[in-house]
Amino acid sequence: MATVESISASIAALNESIETTNGGLDVFYLLFAGAMVFFMQAGFAMLCAGSIRAKNVKNIMLKNILDACGGAVGFWTIGYAFAYGGADSSKITFIGNSDFVLANIHDGASLIGWFFQFAFAATAATIVAGTVAERCKFEAYIAYSLMLTGFVYPVVVHSIWSSSGFLSAFTDDANKFLGSGMIDFAGSGVVHMTGGVTALIAAKILGPRIGRFYDADGNELAEPVSFPPHSVALQVLGTFILWVGWYGFNPGSTLGISPAGYADVAALCAVTTTLAAAAGSVSAMFTDMVMTRKATGETMYDITMCMNGALSGLVGITAGCSVCEPWAALVIGIVAGWVYIFWSNLLVKLKIDDAVDAIPVHFGNGMWGCIATGLFASPGLVDNAYGTPNYGWFYNWGMGNGTGKLLAVEIIGVLFIIGWVGLIMIPYFMLLNAMGLFRVDALEEEVGLDISHHKGAAYDLSGPSEDVKEKYEI
Amino acid sequence: MATVESISASIAALNESIETTNGGLDVFYLLFAGAMVFFMQAGFAMLCAGSIRAKNVKNIMLKNILDACGGAVGFWTIGYAFAYGGADSSKITFIGNSDFVLANIHDGASLIGWFFQFAFAATAATIVAGTVAERCKFEAYIAYSLMLTGFVYPVVVHSIWSSSGFLSAFTDDANKFLGSGMIDFAGSGVVHMTGGVTALIAAKILGPRIGRFYDADGNELAEPVSFPPHSVALQVLGTFILWVGWYGFNPGSTLGISPAGYADVAALCAVTTTLAAAAGSVSAMFTDMVMTRKATGETMYDITMCMNGALSGLVGITAGCSVCEPWAALVIGIVAGWVYIFWSNLLVKLKIDDAVDAIPVHFGNGMWGCIATGLFASPGLVDNAYGTPNYGWFYNWGMGNGTGKLLAVEIIGVLFIIGWVGLIMIPYFMLLNAMGLFRVDALEEEVGLDISHHKGAAYDLSGPSEDVKEKYEI
Amino acid sequence: MATVESISASIAALNESIETTNGGLDVFYLLFAGAMVFFMQAGFAMLCAGSIRAKNVKNIMLKNILDACGGAVGFWTIGYAFAYGGADSSKITFIGNSDFVLANIHDGASLIGWFFQFAFAATAATIVAGTVAERCKFEAYIAYSLMLTGFVYPVVVHSIWSSSGFLSAFTDDANKFLGSGMIDFAGSGVVHMTGGVTALIAAKILGPRIGRFYDADGNELAEPVSFPPHSVALQVLGTFILWVGWYGFNPGSTLGISPAGYADVAALCAVTTTLAAAAGSVSAMFTDMVMTRKATGETMYDITMCMNGALSGLVGITAGCSVCEPWAALVIGIVAGWVYIFWSNLLVKLKIDDAVDAIPVHFGNGMWGCIATGLFASPGLVDNAYGTPNYGWFYNWGMGNGTGKLLAVEIIGVLFIIGWVGLIMIPYFMLLNAMGLFRVDALEEEVGLDISHHKGAAYDLSGPSEDVKEKYEI
Repeated sequence: MATVESISASIAALNESIETTNGGLDVFYLLFAGAMVFFMQAGFAMLCAGSIRAKNVKNIMLKNILDACGGAVGFWTIGYAFAYGGADSSKITFIGNSDFVLANIHDGASLIGWFFQFAFAATAATIVAGTVAERCKFEAYIAYSLMLTGFVYPVVVHSIWSSSGFLSAFTDDANKFLGSGMIDFAGSGVVHMTGGVTALIAAKILGPRIGRFYDADGNELAEPVSFPPHSVALQVLGTFILWVGWYGFNPGSTLGISPAGYADVAALCAVTTTLAAAAGSVSAMFTDMVMTRKATGETMYDITMCMNGALSGLVGITAGCSVCEPWAALVIGIVAGWVYIFWSNLLVKLKIDDAVDAIPVHFGNGMWGCIATGLFASPGLVDNAYGTPNYGWFYNWGMGNGTGKLLAVEIIGVLFIIGWVGLIMIPYFMLLNAMGLFRVDALEEEVGLDISHHKGAAYDLSGPSEDVKEKYEI
Repeated sequence: MATVESISASIAALNESIETTNGGLDVFYLLFAGAMVFFMQAGFAMLCAGSIRAKNVKNIMLKNILDACGGAVGFWTIGYAFAYGGADSSKITFIGNSDFVLANIHDGASLIGWFFQFAFAATAATIVAGTVAERCKFEAYIAYSLMLTGFVYPVVVHSIWSSSGFLSAFTDDANKFLGSGMIDFAGSGVVHMTGGVTALIAAKILGPRIGRFYDADGNELAEPVSFPPHSVALQVLGTFILWVGWYGFNPGSTLGISPAGYADVAALCAVTTTLAAAAGSVSAMFTDMVMTRKATGETMYDITMCMNGALSGLVGITAGCSVCEPWAALVIGIVAGWVYIFWSNLLVKLKIDDAVDAIPVHFGNGMWGCIATGLFASPGLVDNAYGTPNYGWFYNWGMGNGTGKLLAVEIIGVLFIIGWVGLIMIPYFMLLNAMGLFRVDALEEEVGLDISHHKGAAYDLSGPSEDVKEKYEI
Repeated sequence: MATVESISASIAALNESIETTNGGLDVFYLLFAGAMVFFMQAGFAMLCAGSIRAKNVKNIMLKNILDACGGAVGFWTIGYAFAYGGADSSKITFIGNSDFVLANIHDGASLIGWFFQFAFAATAATIVAGTVAERCKFEAYIAYSLMLTGFVYPVVVHSIWSSSGFLSAFTDDANKFLGSGMIDFAGSGVVHMTGGVTALIAAKILGPRIGRFYDADGNELAEPVSFPPHSVALQVLGTFILWVGWYGFNPGSTLGISPAGYADVAALCAVTTTLAAAAGSVSAMFTDMVMTRKATGETMYDITMCMNGALSGLVGITAGCSVCEPWAALVIGIVAGWVYIFWSNLLVKLKIDDAVDAIPVHFGNGMWGCIATGLFASPGLVDNAYGTPNYGWFYNWGMGNGTGKLLAVEIIGVLFIIGWVGLIMIPYFMLLNAMGLFRVDALEEEVGLDISHHKGAAYDLSGPSEDVKEKYEI
């Protein structure tokens, strides 16, 4: 008898050992994924800086750094509490209401969860920096950044990702919108659209840079003028860093790797993420090449298309990376390239000036990602990753029933994000603008923000002075 | 009795739990390692771009990005299937024949395996980009890149790494070449030589850049002209990224970390990789310093030597990182620095123009890595990592038997790679060349490919215009 | 009975399985963390290079690379042995004395431990490179770097981190200094102060760059002259890479993730690291903004403050990241920003020229990090991470006892590091200086070290030549 008892104790101890191991493994997984997502801040900084003119490089990079810093403080004080605090899957709430400043939280799983979620919040915020570059006041940007990470973004997260959100796939079955809730696995909508809508609103209210669509006196130009990126090398570096970071962003969104089935989901995410990025890049570049050739007769391969196409594919697959087959990821990526080109041209037609084309990438393809999930989510994979009964419209169509419940939820999610962000951000930016706090004055814009506000130019590539060269006959 | 049954059930459940944990851990391990290897794409892009003239920066970077994208598509459609599909350790085949487009593959282990292998394929392809920079047609490069990742590289992988390959160490014992098969742990041969041989063939057929060995009219110059790198900062960044990425490349090649003994192998790889890189760097730089001092009397420390020396050490240890003692890694690295210098000088003598010295690094030291494994593989470590009976010639020699079986297999592997890649790539590039599709015309080359084909220069570092400066008295 | 026996065997096998899994997990954890820390080398290289003038870029980067390489060789041959070799928690020793060249070490845990520790050693060494940039002889730097990683740093490590160190928290209780030993979790003192003290000594003995405080003839200038950084983009990239790398540096310092409780500690480290960095950045930038506005009336946001503030917060939290509450991390970060500004101004007053402000960041905040731990270490968290009885003075104060034992140990640790490093490094640099081996001559300094010693300038951003432009009418 003693033997049986001791065996039971041994088995209990073993179970505990495995649980400890799993706990360690999952914390490590989110540490890795969170660090990768945080690294994307460097990617955004390099991409944005590279895309604009040399005279505003310090300004944009300062904004990128402060997005990370403000995001940390904002998300620690209130953002995380609003997003996830006090969630209870048996009831729907608008906003969370506990765990401010991580009070009383000491377990590793929650702490590393905060770290991972903070990195996402900082990403959402920093999407806007590029769009409004070269003309947005520094103080206005800081105010916006705190507003987004502290309040606007957390409400979106709460609604779609917490277990009390009205669109969440993680509530009790009775509370699931249209029986499933929204599938936005890593945040095409939650992160990229939230940033992208804000960017669109900001760009519209802020107005274009002088000389882009209108001259300094406000006269319309015959043709829009593109300002060439000051460093393609920085852009490429930024793009690659973002792509690499996405391997934390998408697979990491399982939020753990030890539970049964999670590893299958995470591995699938790595594959679909890769294929969508590749397809988006190739699609955007070759489509642009063909269009340019038709228009001008010249064959030009545009590296900007290639980079923004890859990022478009990445944003496009983010919602559905865990529920789409690899071939579907490829299709989503190809379409993402077209969505990018469409939105990029549309903005020019609407005379909305996006200094780094973040709106086409994050807003245009954030929407596409959510909708694509409603089209391509495969029954088996939805079951694996979510255990919910609704899947992509193409599969329903193929089976002859034509039910579009998931597609409907995805579209409602898209509209909710646009509506909610617009509700807060339109009046907010209009107010800033009316008070003269939003846009730098024309002089500062022409001179460049680095000299005006940041103690001098970002580069000094001069070698030894002429004096020295003469003196030593170099 | 019930107790014994329930205990058995508990034990079965525990075993399953551990298996699940191990499955998650191994998927995570390859996700980490694959992301690190993918990050090397950024390293190659920065290193290659930094090494060439500013007027071709967009062109080379575009090629780097498209290597990743084309690699993903090519390796997904056919490459992976040719490399690993339908392998069966009881028989030898030339090429795989199933798992095209990852059809019917849904388990995490296989999916993440594809991701890791894709990152390797993209690495093999991108090695060539630097060598042919500044003069290779864009379309020719794309065609080559797909050919390599889709067909040429997969056959090499199949032969040496799949369980059906004729040189593989993973076949049934009866099928192992000379009783052991080739030890090329992370691919000094499979990856680096495959890329390196292709680069050598391409460089020879493509011819040198105008002004390197011959002037624009084809007259031989008295002395070869070096084109200085346009940005050493980008080169250094690229080198460090590559070095960091190698910690995914080499330790990751265990393909898992949970099975008994694997962690020992992975940890050893991290140590040998570090020491070989360090030794290669120091060896190349000081050897060059001494040689330059002998020739010119001046003491110069050449950072290019330092960087390419480190990369040479890394390539050199890649084959044997799991089977060499740390001291041997140091020796391999030192020799790798010399191999680099030897090949670099040889190419100049042969008037083969390698714009970034990728041939000395990847081909020269890829060979050295394979041969070094045949010399330094330690009995105990071979047993740990491979369980095969052949080991390094120096150990046999030390024991007085002088058997060189492993060395022989390594040399045969080297010859196989050269032969196979040459067989396909020599006619391929000759055909492209004969059809006038391989090299840009002289005008484009002189103007630079960025202006000719990619919509303008890569950099615009001008600050505010003179007008503005005058107007505001800056 | 047979059943009970077989069950016991099963249970033993299960225990072994879990141990194998844990072993793999921990090796993987340190591989990840070590690679992240190694990546910081790239961060230092970019930050240092970006901070100085374009004419010395190759020189500084070469030093950064050789710190990594020399660090590997130095730490493999003797450094690791001096730091950890033959440690025995029952007795105190000055220095380790076994495991030179990793002889007889084949287990994964020890090998990966070496890799992780090597990356730390290289970090300590490379801190100095920036401070002495633009004027230090290359040979002197190499000599210093080997000295630090091979001997000076290992003694500090031995004293504070090995289980035989006189200040270590890992000795037997009887040997613990003031009952607890020093808490310097990831090395505010061990790594950053060691590098920082050395930088301070070197900068003092080496003297300022020509034209900084004195003109070429040695006459004092009316005002100190700042040399603007040549590339803010490189600085920002470097800062972000360092920040990301810190997620290996701090959480990785648990040295494992599988044992019970370790994951809680690692997760806490990720959170405190994030908050301190964010707080330091914001604190330094706004404090500087307010001070500048008071002095000049202009509102300027200084990105250098923002970056060095973030790094200051990171260094400041490194000692206490595992034992401070998130709110305390925020406070530590805010103060770190002020410590940075104080030290930066102090150095200017003392006419000590630090080309990249590494002394304020690493020395100033290394001290602050140790002292802050003595103030803020929370009882519960100290118990989790160390199991020792002394905690932060503020907590004692709050409880009304006012015991400052931990604070006392921390201060003694700070003094020990200053004393030990000074003892070796002051005479060492004075000797080098007296022999004329420390500083380049004035001509070389004015021309720049790249042209003088490294075969030419680091950049050539010229596009196609004027000839070509004219010929083809571009």
